Amino acid sequence: MNTLAIPPSVIDSIRNALIEDIGHGDITTEMTIEAESRSEAVLIAKEDTVVAGLPFFKAAFNIVGTGVETRALVGEGQLVSKGEIIAKLQGSTRQILTAERVSLNIMQRLCGIASLTRQFVMAVAGLPVKIVDTRKTAPNMRYMEKYAVRIGGGDNHRFGLYDGILIKDNHIKAAGGISKAIERVNKAPLLTKIEVEVKNLEELREALATRADIIMLDNMDTAAMRQAVGIARAGRAEVLLEASGNVTFLSVREIAETGVDIISTGYITHSARAADISLKII
Amino acid sequence: MNTLAIPPSVIDSIRNALIEDIGHGDITTEMTIEAESRSEAVLIAKEDTVVAGLPFFKAAFNIVGTGVETRALVGEGQLVSKGEIIAKLQGSTRQILTAERVSLNIMQRLCGIASLTRQFVMAVAGLPVKIVDTRKTAPNMRYMEKYAVRIGGGDNHRFGLYDGILIKDNHIKAAGGISKAIERVNKAPLLTKIEVEVKNLEELREALATRADIIMLDNMDTAAMRQAVGIARAGRAEVLLEASGNVTFLSVREIAETGVDIISTGYITHSARAADISLKII
Amino acid sequence: MNTLAIPPSVIDSIRNALIEDIGHGDITTEMTIEAESRSEAVLIAKEDTVVAGLPFFKAAFNIVGTGVETRALVGEGQLVSKGEIIAKLQGSTRQILTAERVSLNIMQRLCGIASLTRQFVMAVAGLPVKIVDTRKTAPNMRYMEKYAVRIGGGDNHRFGLYDGILIKDNHIKAAGGISKAIERVNKAPLLTKIEVEVKNLEELREALATRADIIMLDNMDTAAMRQAVGIARAGRAEVLLEASGNVTFLSVREIAETGVDIISTGYITHSARAADISLKII
Amino acid sequence: MNTLAIPPSVIDSIRNALIEDIGHGDITTEMTIEAESRSEAVLIAKEDTVVAGLPFFKAAFNIVGTGVETRALVGEGQLVSKGEIIAKLQGSTRQILTAERVSLNIMQRLCGIASLTRQFVMAVAGLPVKIVDTRKTAPNMRYMEKYAVRIGGGDNHRFGLYDGILIKDNHIKAAGGISKAIERVNKAPLLTKIEVEVKNLEELREALATRADIIMLDNMDTAAMRQAVGIARAGRAEVLLEASGNVTFLSVREIAETGVDIISTGYITHSARAADISLKII
Amino acid sequence: MNTLAIPPSVIDSIRNALIEDIGHGDITTEMTIEAESRSEAVLIAKEDTVVAGLPFFKAAFNIVGTGVETRALVGEGQLVSKGEIIAKLQGSTRQILTAERVSLNIMQRLCGIASLTRQFVMAVAGLPVKIVDTRKTAPNMRYMEKYAVRIGGGDNHRFGLYDGILIKDNHIKAAGGISKAIERVNKAPLLTKIEVEVKNLEELREALATRADIIMLDNMDTAAMRQAVGIARAGRAEVLLEASGNVTFLSVREIAETGVDIISTGYITHSARAADISLKII
Amino acid sequence: MNTLAIPPSVIDSIRNALIEDIGHGDITTEMTIEAESRSEAVLIAKEDTVVAGLPFFKAAFNIVGTGVETRALVGEGQLVSKGEIIAKLQGSTRQILTAERVSLNIMQRLCGIASLTRQFVMAVAGLPVKIVDTRKTAPNMRYMEKYAVRIGGGDNHRFGLYDGILIKDNHIKAAGGISKAIERVNKAPLLTKIEVEVKNLEELREALATRADIIMLDNMDTAAMRQAVGIARAGRAEVLLEASGNVTFLSVREIAETGVDIISTGYITHSARAADISLKII
Repeated sequence: MNTLAIPPSVIDSIRNALIEDIGHGDITTEMTIEAESRSEAVLIAKEDTVVAGLPFFKAAFNIVGTGVETRALVGEGQLVSKGEIIAKLQGSTRQILTAERVSLNIMQRLCGIASLTRQFVMAVAGLPVKIVDTRKTAPNMRYMEKYAVRIGGGDNHRFGLYDGILIKDNHIKAAGGISKAIERVNKAPLLTKIEVEVKNLEELREALATRADIIMLDNMDTAAMRQAVGIARAGRAEVLLEASGNVTFLSVREIAETGVDIISTGYITHSARAADISLKII
Repeated sequence: MNTLAIPPSVIDSIRNALIEDIGHGDITTEMTIEAESRSEAVLIAKEDTVVAGLPFFKAAFNIVGTGVETRALVGEGQLVSKGEIIAKLQGSTRQILTAERVSLNIMQRLCGIASLTRQFVMAVAGLPVKIVDTRKTAPNMRYMEKYAVRIGGGDNHRFGLYDGILIKDNHIKAAGGISKAIERVNKAPLLTKIEVEVKNLEELREALATRADIIMLDNMDTAAMRQAVGIARAGRAEVLLEASGNVTFLSVREIAETGVDIISTGYITHSARAADISLKII
Repeated sequence: MNTLAIPPSVIDSIRNALIEDIGHGDITTEMTIEAESRSEAVLIAKEDTVVAGLPFFKAAFNIVGTGVETRALVGEGQLVSKGEIIAKLQGSTRQILTAERVSLNIMQRLCGIASLTRQFVMAVAGLPVKIVDTRKTAPNMRYMEKYAVRIGGGDNHRFGLYDGILIKDNHIKAAGGISKAIERVNKAPLLTKIEVEVKNLEELREALATRADIIMLDNMDTAAMRQAVGIARAGRAEVLLEASGNVTFLSVREIAETGVDIISTGYITHSARAADISLKII
Repeated sequence: MNTLAIPPSVIDSIRNALIEDIGHGDITTEMTIEAESRSEAVLIAKEDTVVAGLPFFKAAFNIVGTGVETRALVGEGQLVSKGEIIAKLQGSTRQILTAERVSLNIMQRLCGIASLTRQFVMAVAGLPVKIVDTRKTAPNMRYMEKYAVRIGGGDNHRFGLYDGILIKDNHIKAAGGISKAIERVNKAPLLTKIEVEVKNLEELREALATRADIIMLDNMDTAAMRQAVGIARAGRAEVLLEASGNVTFLSVREIAETGVDIISTGYITHSARAADISLKII
Repeated sequence: MNTLAIPPSVIDSIRNALIEDIGHGDITTEMTIEAESRSEAVLIAKEDTVVAGLPFFKAAFNIVGTGVETRALVGEGQLVSKGEIIAKLQGSTRQILTAERVSLNIMQRLCGIASLTRQFVMAVAGLPVKIVDTRKTAPNMRYMEKYAVRIGGGDNHRFGLYDGILIKDNHIKAAGGISKAIERVNKAPLLTKIEVEVKNLEELREALATRADIIMLDNMDTAAMRQAVGIARAGRAEVLLEASGNVTFLSVREIAETGVDIISTGYITHSARAADISLKII
Repeated sequence: MNTLAIPPSVIDSIRNALIEDIGHGDITTEMTIEAESRSEAVLIAKEDTVVAGLPFFKAAFNIVGTGVETRALVGEGQLVSKGEIIAKLQGSTRQILTAERVSLNIMQRLCGIASLTRQFVMAVAGLPVKIVDTRKTAPNMRYMEKYAVRIGGGDNHRFGLYDGILIKDNHIKAAGGISKAIERVNKAPLLTKIEVEVKNLEELREALATRADIIMLDNMDTAAMRQAVGIARAGRAEVLLEASGNVTFLSVREIAETGVDIISTGYITHSARAADISLKII
């Protein structure tokens, strides 16, 4: 496990999740387990999964107390098989049991996302395309979920409304057209790129005439996408094209084969199934 | 839509999610949309779904500002069809766009959970059994997710480690057996019930001899469950039996037919697919 | 002293109390005491008292800094005599003085509550009745005050509005009667018991016909309580009866002798006198 | 009721108390009371009491929602008799019931403190002496409790470690004597007075030779206090003398008659009995 | 004044500043001003200044209470002369006085920054160069200070460590060279540009061979900068060049004339003099 | 460096500043620096400066992680020359780089304030007058800035609205005159002094007849100040006189020579130039 430094705001989010679960105390554990009791436990995969989230898993125990040591047996991003031990824990039985559920909820969710992302990435293997996420993440989990996407082999789109200019249909309509909207973003922070959404080839041509860095092809069919790639390459070859909408595990390779640079999908975060992982005291 | 009062701690959670997304500002909207711009928008179902989450959806806009009015066209728990309008919004274009993603992330997630719960509930239709959730919820989303389970027709297990005594295998092992563990919980808050987990019929018999209110049959097959029901009814008829483990949409009815009172499943919260819902400015 | 793990939300409450007292700094100590100064101090009982609160006392010093070691000489719940030393401290003089008042305010309050509770518990010695607290606690002190009640030998009623169903007169009136109110609480969390308040024997009979787990006899005189016990035992013997209202140190035994199971009183928390305890640098 | 503006930090404290009580929701009220239900309620004194705390009482309802109007019938500081109505409420039944306990806990506590303070103040009627509080207040309640002391006719000592220099025995010992300690506080904020504690007349004389503004006579008997007053008046007449320690309702007048300017007592805050006040829906 | 929506995190920062100033209350105002008192006040420039910060000025009053209306007479970015009225206020005297200092501290600071920025921008008038800020802002004031830079006519560099890749000497050294460092940033969020710092022309050439979007010329003299511009334009014309280091009001035009695209300076934020502005009750 | 204990509220302020800068992560450092990398770094003065702020500098690193050791080579308040090393750091390269900017922003600001204060203090060398600050500090930086003033040799006026009574023109007007305003502040906390602002000699005479501890001569010319000193010394010699308004480095000695006791100026905090200090990995 690497020593990823977790941003303080993410520590707050994990701490809030523990407060949500612990409330006025883990009353069962307090009454049935002696304060001095010590145990060993293992984090086991109960199905094949890509491992993601160990730094946060560990952080949850550290917030509850200083009495539990966690030691990862596999690295982030590694595929483990059903039955394999991901990490070992040792220390205060009470603290292990009290932090168990929150730490598992995080691990299961992140492993689920990393595994699903890995599938999408493998589906486009060999093609020069990135699978990227969206802002369709569970509230207060964005940092961790986008981390899991990277661990799964995907890439991150912007993290929030603040670290990228993404001009969508509503912005375009309000501004009176693509070119006018782009003109208005003249006070963007220096290191922020500009992306604009287009619905058809006509809009694509208008967008290519602006200084947009990325153009999102919104809900186009693959035939249109292929044409779009041709037009864009002939125009401003350095502009990146992002396919968005109707991306499924079945369609993703066909989309990738149109030649787009980026395929974004909310599915890998908002609809990932939790990985089956459990914690057992041994 | 009813006027559910949202607990202050849940308001904090929604506000934190908005801070997560907005950060130092919705820079695209600020630059492309005039401050004075006003719009109307609709919340549309893009697939059939049970509606759940409108109070939180509305709260998100209220936190961003006071410039957006939301009006629900359907009630919580109602099934809407693809294309149906769930709610109408009217007011500040900037505020609509800035709160859009977080409010949708909440709605999509809660509708997904309510819809999946509804399916499980319908699968056991006619049988005297409750479908209940677990603590396997997304971090910082427990209140809202458990609300969605209720809207979907399910029931709530405890909300956290604090509002119920649930004695699991680790507690039993540490205490030296089921009866000893139950003896230790003699200082439980007055209105808190006691549940104990058993792995086999022998443990069931031991549990029936205690003052446990509910007994969880952990990972038993349906044959064993049926026997367990018989034993329990013959012993202490008022004790409730909860089936837990390996509950799927395919197995749930068979489990229900064993005669258990409660079936709990983490699947309806941790692995629900997000409902396809979108917000369109009209 | 045991190693009670304090819930994170309670740590926040102690930290807020320190911020309240310290504000922009303990200016007297900063100016008069050298940063390097080390001292030993004792926590002394200046009157006979039941000891309660050492984990929180210790936590206050740990929040201010890491420079003070505390060592308890007596256990929680032990009765100490005037002049007896409860704990010894050693370390940074500045930190001892800066955390002194808040840590003492907590100790004095909790020892006062534990001592008063102990008196009520002793007053009913030999009778099968529990002395329980209420929600009449100092704001932001509920966890600690309910802890002190347990240390004093009492039991806890629910911790908040969230971990128990307690149907009072206003709920009954709004629902149109006891049975109707009980019918409405069909979505209570699984491990939450139901209590209902009755004002007379007629209401008691109505309540006995429902699935209420506990019935509160509100402000009845002891004669009526005795009758109530008779009726309840003859009806549903497993239902618990709670006496509430006008419970004083003088009346508590008489109430207990009516045969009720539980006697609740806000007096032990909201009106406990602070125990006389002080911290002396030696 | 006056329109006292409550500092934001105190609003936070009341909001935290509501979160403590409400947690994941007032489940009884949500299930038994319709969202649309409206009620009227009265805040009634069930014993004679000085009224204190209405601004905070009102704030609690405003934090829970905007659906409850409160109207005070008596002013802060007014003495009401048993049975008298202090305030009327009108609005959302749910919000009235959900905020009831916290708002009452505050009112009962503050009325109790104001009433007890009033008794101490009346005990010294006619004498030129101030009854002042200490920092022995319930954690996170200092602002409100010191407010209640003022309403009761008392005065406030410093609010925290930050708004006054109070050199106690430990500071004196560490600094090597009273004069040396006073010399060290040469960087005190400009508007902060200096008080020093003395244990006997010798120390008093040393303190009078410094620039201390107030001298605290710590645990002296009244004979010594009377001598101290004589010495001080003959020395620096403008120096104020504060009597501290062993102040009870029985001893306070005798202490006042020694001629001291100030009598401080923690008793009026840490050991005030809660006033008996209740909220009734009518 | 426009209706800029202030991000929730910035509202928190203003609220924290009010808590810092108000603490346990504006005791002077509470004692000397009647709660019902109403006043009118004006915000006056006491020297020529560019106006910046009115939305935050207004927000400060709204946080303290709802009793003060503010009305701007001039727009953000407008230059006002000594003696000119910037805004009028009307409402609760107490609230005006309590929020006065914090709201003024914000206005004075932001007007100072906007004015200084305006001077730098005017110094390079006519040249195709942007004056941009840095992260050298007062802690917890970054959003507001960067807003003031924009109002003054400048542009914003990245807002934090999170919304841009800026590879500095230490990163380069650790990665083993410019190209290797750039290779490592292959998981940057999609809409984030890459900037790299170079110290000399040799490093510039290495950087031009990478996919860096912006190259920072760190502490070069103007002769070297001029050469750098030549080299860059001949190589990858679309790459932007940023001059950094030793930028003063005297040197800025000479630097701009070298042909660089961007000049960044911490001076406009960390060393701006507060504008002389005051609030007068009339 | 001394072991100043930083109040918890100030720790929160530094932590908030780190959250402001780090957001969802120091993405450059995470991608270019290995987690295991260790470095040494020096904090260097790049111009002559008074050193102030090392405890807060150190705290910033401790909040980001536990991997960096800082060791001061000079004491707070010491004057260092250009090129001199102020402190050495050793440990995690990532943590050094991630906390660098915030810790430097604090140091540069505080050293700038301490240096400017030192200049004002030296300008009045030999005269019995104190240079004091005001509440004109950067929002959320008051504690640290007032600390820097003390380090620079100045003194602190009150920290906020709460720790001193300062009756200004608006309070006087509302109360109906100076004497009436002073009469109203009869419930001030015990250790809080009273200051009143006067605009001319007539008001001064009125103020001298009250129990004000300090009188502020607001915007008087030095001739008037000299007269004021004469009048005050002849009247109540113990009253302190504070000169306020139009205090510049050029005028401060002339003002001091009028015989006033205190000269206050916002300039030393709100308009101090940041000291040029940098952190270099070696």
